[in-house]
Amino acid sequence: MSTVKVSNGNSVSSIEVEDGVSLLESISKIKDMHIDATCGGKGTCGKCKVKISKGNLSKPSKSEIKFLGDRDLKDGYRLSCMVPVTGNIDVLIDGINERSQVLTSHKGFTERLNPIISKKHLKIPLPSLEDQRSDLSRVLESIPLDNPSVSLPLRQKLPSLLRNSEYSITAVFSDDTLVEVEAGDTENLNYAIAVDIGTTTIAAYLLDSNTGNILDTISGLNSQKIFGADVISRIEYTMQGDGKLELLQNKIVTQISDQCIFLAERNNISRENIYSLILAGNTTMLHLFFGVDPVGIAAAPFIPGFRNAITLSSSALKDFSLNCRIYSLPSISGYVGADIVSGILATRMHESKELSLLIDIGTNGEIVLGNKEKLYCCSTAAGPAFEGAHISCGLGGITGAVDSAVLERDHIKFSTIGNEKAIGICGSGIIDIVAVLLRSGLVDYTGRIPDEGETKNGISSELLKKLKIDKNVPAFLVADASESGNGEDIVFTQTDIREVQLAKAAISAGILSLLNKAGKSVSEVDHLFVAGGFGSYISIKSAADIGLFPAELLEKTESVGNTAGLGALTCALSKENFNQSKEVAKITEYVELSSDTFFNMKYMEEMVFPEYRELDI
Amino acid sequence: MSTVKVSNGNSVSSIEVEDGVSLLESISKIKDMHIDATCGGKGTCGKCKVKISKGNLSKPSKSEIKFLGDRDLKDGYRLSCMVPVTGNIDVLIDGINERSQVLTSHKGFTERLNPIISKKHLKIPLPSLEDQRSDLSRVLESIPLDNPSVSLPLRQKLPSLLRNSEYSITAVFSDDTLVEVEAGDTENLNYAIAVDIGTTTIAAYLLDSNTGNILDTISGLNSQKIFGADVISRIEYTMQGDGKLELLQNKIVTQISDQCIFLAERNNISRENIYSLILAGNTTMLHLFFGVDPVGIAAAPFIPGFRNAITLSSSALKDFSLNCRIYSLPSISGYVGADIVSGILATRMHESKELSLLIDIGTNGEIVLGNKEKLYCCSTAAGPAFEGAHISCGLGGITGAVDSAVLERDHIKFSTIGNEKAIGICGSGIIDIVAVLLRSGLVDYTGRIPDEGETKNGISSELLKKLKIDKNVPAFLVADASESGNGEDIVFTQTDIREVQLAKAAISAGILSLLNKAGKSVSEVDHLFVAGGFGSYISIKSAADIGLFPAELLEKTESVGNTAGLGALTCALSKENFNQSKEVAKITEYVELSSDTFFNMKYMEEMVFPEYRELDI
Repeated sequence: MSTVKVSNGNSVSSIEVEDGVSLLESISKIKDMHIDATCGGKGTCGKCKVKISKGNLSKPSKSEIKFLGDRDLKDGYRLSCMVPVTGNIDVLIDGINERSQVLTSHKGFTERLNPIISKKHLKIPLPSLEDQRSDLSRVLESIPLDNPSVSLPLRQKLPSLLRNSEYSITAVFSDDTLVEVEAGDTENLNYAIAVDIGTTTIAAYLLDSNTGNILDTISGLNSQKIFGADVISRIEYTMQGDGKLELLQNKIVTQISDQCIFLAERNNISRENIYSLILAGNTTMLHLFFGVDPVGIAAAPFIPGFRNAITLSSSALKDFSLNCRIYSLPSISGYVGADIVSGILATRMHESKELSLLIDIGTNGEIVLGNKEKLYCCSTAAGPAFEGAHISCGLGGITGAVDSAVLERDHIKFSTIGNEKAIGICGSGIIDIVAVLLRSGLVDYTGRIPDEGETKNGISSELLKKLKIDKNVPAFLVADASESGNGEDIVFTQTDIREVQLAKAAISAGILSLLNKAGKSVSEVDHLFVAGGFGSYISIKSAADIGLFPAELLEKTESVGNTAGLGALTCALSKENFNQSKEVAKITEYVELSSDTFFNMKYMEEMVFPEYRELDI
Repeated sequence: MSTVKVSNGNSVSSIEVEDGVSLLESISKIKDMHIDATCGGKGTCGKCKVKISKGNLSKPSKSEIKFLGDRDLKDGYRLSCMVPVTGNIDVLIDGINERSQVLTSHKGFTERLNPIISKKHLKIPLPSLEDQRSDLSRVLESIPLDNPSVSLPLRQKLPSLLRNSEYSITAVFSDDTLVEVEAGDTENLNYAIAVDIGTTTIAAYLLDSNTGNILDTISGLNSQKIFGADVISRIEYTMQGDGKLELLQNKIVTQISDQCIFLAERNNISRENIYSLILAGNTTMLHLFFGVDPVGIAAAPFIPGFRNAITLSSSALKDFSLNCRIYSLPSISGYVGADIVSGILATRMHESKELSLLIDIGTNGEIVLGNKEKLYCCSTAAGPAFEGAHISCGLGGITGAVDSAVLERDHIKFSTIGNEKAIGICGSGIIDIVAVLLRSGLVDYTGRIPDEGETKNGISSELLKKLKIDKNVPAFLVADASESGNGEDIVFTQTDIREVQLAKAAISAGILSLLNKAGKSVSEVDHLFVAGGFGSYISIKSAADIGLFPAELLEKTESVGNTAGLGALTCALSKENFNQSKEVAKITEYVELSSDTFFNMKYMEEMVFPEYRELDI
């Protein structure tokens, strides 16, 4: 019998076990001590890492060398499932497996690094009559790969590389694939690029895989935009005839390829040292990137060509200039894409005991609800109102767009991007305007804008004066033609409010439907994560005020930025994250709202705004 | 408790076992009943097949569906490791696992079929709001693949294929790779091509994977021949500068591609229905086919770029016109190639209890010794004497070549190919001539040809008259200029005999070295397989008489034809065979003769011929 002593923060426990029992099993017998080991102790998940502070140990196993690397092993870390107890051992588990950290910033990545692409400098044993292994075998047997795969170009390259480098080479590998071989020691050069392919915007992040730092970012409008603003119009474009799909694919592949080259050059990095491209994006964008016909997504029953994660060599894409591995995150359904899986990874909601809601609002609002026990998701057709489309004076977030509105006593004060004269209203302005119109009482919960000249109890004449008729519908004047930047009235009309009502009803009914599906109430939700550019710019308070989400969640709401990009970049820096993405996509239950009667009922109910006169102010 | 009754030929035994125990375990407890199960009962090797003649059974497991297929399952075959005993069962194991059959003919393939490429017609469930799986998932989940991999082109093809075929498709797969998808039911069209890439000759076999029949064969001279007759000169050519390796690769890839197209067209087969190309060949030829620099093979320590089996898509080769999977058998060393691994497979020596010797003689003589317990191999530089090269009047096997010689009383009778006038001597003729010169006593065991005019006890004047001086060395006149086909004397000279002595010494010393390594004596050898064209044409008796192999093996010698081609085609028709090839290459111990003192001693000793005056006639 030996004693295993386990420290976890301030708590220390010990247990007597028979020699030969694994450390993992020993620790798991102690009350309140828990180590994750999703593989069940087979040494294949790498999760059960502990730090040995005292005790005689066995030699590290092959899988420990693989998962921990030299540095961790030297620091005393081991996989507890691989260590048989053969004497008294002191173990630390404090903090080692804690990961539930929300990434809300682009400024750094603090998670433990285990990049999806590893590099290892190797001094390959010289051949002799006593060691006649092939060039390939002597390289592969120097790397801990279980079931190595090697491309034909690498086989072709190896013989002369070995002979010209005096058998000192650096192997570049990803899981069991030998990705590249380079002469000499190039371990210090290991870069990755993570990309979020949005329908509107493509954002790319250059990462140093050795430090986890984000070195640079670039974003640009999706060059497919000229073929349609939203996914449906892009899909319809591909159906117009032969070569259209290939054209859209070429656009997106070329654009991302150019972004990668730009990032490499701006940072004086050789493009040969960028080994991985990690992709997130909505399901349709990923279909277009890979040239897979998205036709099934366009109409019910909304069938994608593929949903799973894809790992392949960039040589499979003819228009891509970098020679690297491409890792595409999995999607969940035709309208809940890899960008949402990436968002789940970034917020860590899949690892938390607490119940989280994640909403990502664009033309579609994607919503995820759940915790480590179970995740549900849905997509709801919010329409593009919050992006400024289908709004009479709607605009994207450009200079001169009204981006906020505040009710000050008896009038409303607007601000614009760049403090320029107003030329239109962007998403955050739209939500603010609706919110102040409701708060002021000028518009009631039904969303009706009073007619020009109509009076209303308790409403200042200042505000009533802003009522007018615009193109035959009642409207609220945001800026008069004389003071606007384009010589025209900037108005917010009755039609615009109806658009907002449809959009907010879709989102809030979606939230309620997932809660209903999960058997949870609003009060049980611990976190509401608002993702995307939308989440960064809008007033969360205004969004709650117009009923986009239940008002009682306001205190629990956090704007979490571009989680699609953040989740992708964590996958570049942690192969466990990429593997988790596959698991997350598999276990997240998709709820199809188009045929859901509960949703349709709530959608009608949620068309109205909260009643401010009674509930608020 | 239940009773398991097992029949094996005339022998029937039974055993009582507890319910729940596997059938494999039950049978293994019976004395003298044995079933192979190399995976140890995990359902992953597919070897423990039995036929159930009576008894209630569990549903077939996934691995049984994979290994046995519908037909076998319907016929009552099961994998015994997957079947728990749950009542009385009667089982037949007779003959099911017998495989030790030597393939010596091209005429048919009688082994149980389990082609390396399978096809399965699928009626894919139609998508609906209740079944929103992706196109890819609904296909993959209809095939029993454990960890499926799918190429990008297939992902791209799938959406429109499904929609245009009304979801009735045929999946083409190999192990866990989905290779192709086709509209409708095309199960009846499944062809493969096996190729033996020889330094001199390339032989291709067209196979019907559904029947195992060889439909057609074609062979041609290796188009690289103009760059050198042997592997060393080809390797030296690749070292002459940039592009030379690529040129040799292009030659061989294009030639095989053309052979495949020719076979398809001659047999009215669509080239789309040829799904696999199985390659055997010597190590250098496979390097040249795949464009891998063979430079390390040329000089000590003789290091190949790769030795392992390669499976890849033909799209990796730019000059190959068929879209298929390429399976290349593994090599053992720089000079014991996939052709020899293929020979081991064809002769089944790796499965037999009996001790076998396999010799394959070309410029190098490759020799394998062993049985199911252990295999040893070596390569010995025989030189090209037996191919007619480096012999003064040597020729390949063409019309007019002297191909046999028989001692009739006091003179020697020759025959030629095509019964034309002699224009030279081919390999089988060379061996026969040496044998009859020895048998006649004209030449003694040292190999000395008497001078012109010299007399010798007991030698007829008829024979002595044939002695002459040719280019300053003693020679034996095979055909006088007046009766030859080219107006010149056809002679066999002292120099020629020395070449034969070197060659035969290399082979027989190689045989003795392997026997020595294995701790076996000649008398323990049960079979001598002589492979290759050489083996088909020579007189085995003459080969024994000149001491190419020990005379006492003559009764045990069998000419087994082109085992390199035969082994490759068995891999096309049986994926187990292809997997076995990897195992065979791994376990066969390569004996490097160049540094072996025993070999060098024997090489000197074996330079002399057996002493016929004393030992024979």
